[in-house]
Amino acid sequence: MTHSPSTPPRFTALADSLPATVPFVGPETQERARGRTFAARLGANENLFGPSPQAITAMAATAQDVWMYGDPENYDLRAALALHHGVTPDHIVVGEGIDGLLGYLVRLLVARGDAVVTSDGAYPTFNFHVAGFGGSLHKVPFRGDHEDPEALIGKAAEVSAKLIYLANPDNPMGSHHPATTLTAMIDALPDGTLLVLDEAYVELAPEGTAPALTPDDPRVIRMRTFSKGYGMAGARVGYAIGAAPLIAAFNKVRNHFGVGRIAQAGALAALADTAHLAWVRAQVAASRAVLAQIAAANGLVALPSATNFVTMDCGADGVFARRVLAALIARDIFVRMPFVAPQDRCIRVGAGGAAAMAAFAAALPQALAQARG
Amino acid sequence: MTHSPSTPPRFTALADSLPATVPFVGPETQERARGRTFAARLGANENLFGPSPQAITAMAATAQDVWMYGDPENYDLRAALALHHGVTPDHIVVGEGIDGLLGYLVRLLVARGDAVVTSDGAYPTFNFHVAGFGGSLHKVPFRGDHEDPEALIGKAAEVSAKLIYLANPDNPMGSHHPATTLTAMIDALPDGTLLVLDEAYVELAPEGTAPALTPDDPRVIRMRTFSKGYGMAGARVGYAIGAAPLIAAFNKVRNHFGVGRIAQAGALAALADTAHLAWVRAQVAASRAVLAQIAAANGLVALPSATNFVTMDCGADGVFARRVLAALIARDIFVRMPFVAPQDRCIRVGAGGAAAMAAFAAALPQALAQARG
Repeated sequence: MTHSPSTPPRFTALADSLPATVPFVGPETQERARGRTFAARLGANENLFGPSPQAITAMAATAQDVWMYGDPENYDLRAALALHHGVTPDHIVVGEGIDGLLGYLVRLLVARGDAVVTSDGAYPTFNFHVAGFGGSLHKVPFRGDHEDPEALIGKAAEVSAKLIYLANPDNPMGSHHPATTLTAMIDALPDGTLLVLDEAYVELAPEGTAPALTPDDPRVIRMRTFSKGYGMAGARVGYAIGAAPLIAAFNKVRNHFGVGRIAQAGALAALADTAHLAWVRAQVAASRAVLAQIAAANGLVALPSATNFVTMDCGADGVFARRVLAALIARDIFVRMPFVAPQDRCIRVGAGGAAAMAAFAAALPQALAQARG
Repeated sequence: MTHSPSTPPRFTALADSLPATVPFVGPETQERARGRTFAARLGANENLFGPSPQAITAMAATAQDVWMYGDPENYDLRAALALHHGVTPDHIVVGEGIDGLLGYLVRLLVARGDAVVTSDGAYPTFNFHVAGFGGSLHKVPFRGDHEDPEALIGKAAEVSAKLIYLANPDNPMGSHHPATTLTAMIDALPDGTLLVLDEAYVELAPEGTAPALTPDDPRVIRMRTFSKGYGMAGARVGYAIGAAPLIAAFNKVRNHFGVGRIAQAGALAALADTAHLAWVRAQVAASRAVLAQIAAANGLVALPSATNFVTMDCGADGVFARRVLAALIARDIFVRMPFVAPQDRCIRVGAGGAAAMAAFAAALPQALAQARG
């Protein structure tokens, strides 16, 4: 580094080069700016059906034990996850949400200028981490509102990518590929390219979406979370499944005490409550159907969804969809939308219970009228 | 990077160079290895007097809301902290414990080969982060069981350090410098050196330990936590106070959703319960006196402590102290000790209630006899 002494702090050249933008503006920020809370919180892909009552009980009971650090090995949770998935604890690292784990993974693999491939319009927090460690991000377009495995592979081979990011099911489109497509993609990976398979929504996807776990395969790392199907976004518990040497490497860089004691207790209880997860799946499926009906009743096309949100084609361009979005927000409905054309012709609406669906159904025709007017 | 394509993952050269060691082995790991739980958990500098009942209530009540992400701006908590400290929210960043914030800070400032100065035997997690980002760590010895501001300053000037780390009060010795010493140290900082002043234990220290907050001073960043005085180690909430441009830079790299919803609610309630903090201070002071009595009754010298632990000079060398430690652990008393000579002549014992103190008092003479035998 060639900094000359001066008033501190002397940031690294990389830190100096990073933009001040953040991946997402939270709904609370919008509520403060509006001076009014949202009536329906449908924009952050949260699970409005909530966590397992057993998880709530476990977290509430653990509150009094919070004077103790959480186990830095996350041992009990990793053991339970290993049993659940038919792998060993050495195949699993638990972290502060998938966001935290993506940061560690990028840090382990990406030095300045290293190539990484993702889809244009895919998860911005992954891009945030790649930029944050100086990686060179190469984007390929979606194809028919799906991430495009062939194009991702082709680009990775072209640029000798260290990482490919793909979410299955996809956010923000809600689309998915069947397991067979992913298995073929893994087999087609260029030498030296690791596939980051983000399966945040996989518990809500149709059977046959997740490829069989092959945890000793060094070519792929699977990202899972308690934030979506398990309804615990605010607890910050994600995990990755991968080959033991890669998983062990996280210990070189992770915040060892980063996953809190209450969060660990909640995740352990949530994992055990398979009946609640089945109930959530049914509720989400029913809500997706309601959202599709609302969309159709308003002349919008609901895209097929393998997640807990439905992405709706507003039938025009991004300018129009942004007007619809703004009009919904003005009517106290928190929703978001894809960032990149042509996916930004859509809005993205979360599944939820009857009250939230009714609020959205009431606001949408008014919002569309305003956007068209 | 000069990796040739091969089976992934292709780690960065830096990641490849990092050791597999971790900063701390948790008590749960020891319990699993022993096949037996500890009777007294006195080794992790946790607050056995626990969090505010109001914080427990707030966390328990928030468990059902955990389907929502926590506010990524930590707005309410930052606003309350700003009011509490007489600064503005722009002077405060909240993160996943001081550990998490130290990682972000090092990442922002330290590129490969950049010089950093700390004390030999000071907080190993800071060293873990410096190594993790390829920094060049320079250590100066303790002086009279205190960190040595003059030596730290001298070394920083010599190596043009970007960062100096100093904890006041100090861990693992429990010693402290008065505010005036710190103020003089800040004024003596070399151009371009930022002082990381870790004040994790400051709520438990005598009046006059913390220098007045001068939040616009670009030369120092103050690290605070809810893990110690506030008794919420397992919630993972730390914060830093510093000049607004430095604080804003954390947004370039931090895990924006990393502080959970339950943790934020708990910290907010804990901060408001000043009576509980005062009670904890009194309990800790009483327990320190008990620990000093136990030490004296066994021929050990309890060092003065400004924290919630008491470091005891076992009167010989590190080999002997390690034997005492092992014998205490064999008797189900979880304690730790300094890593580096001559501080490793000591063991470090946490404050606690009557039962924990009685368990330690019963085990210590036996442990000493075994260590001497």
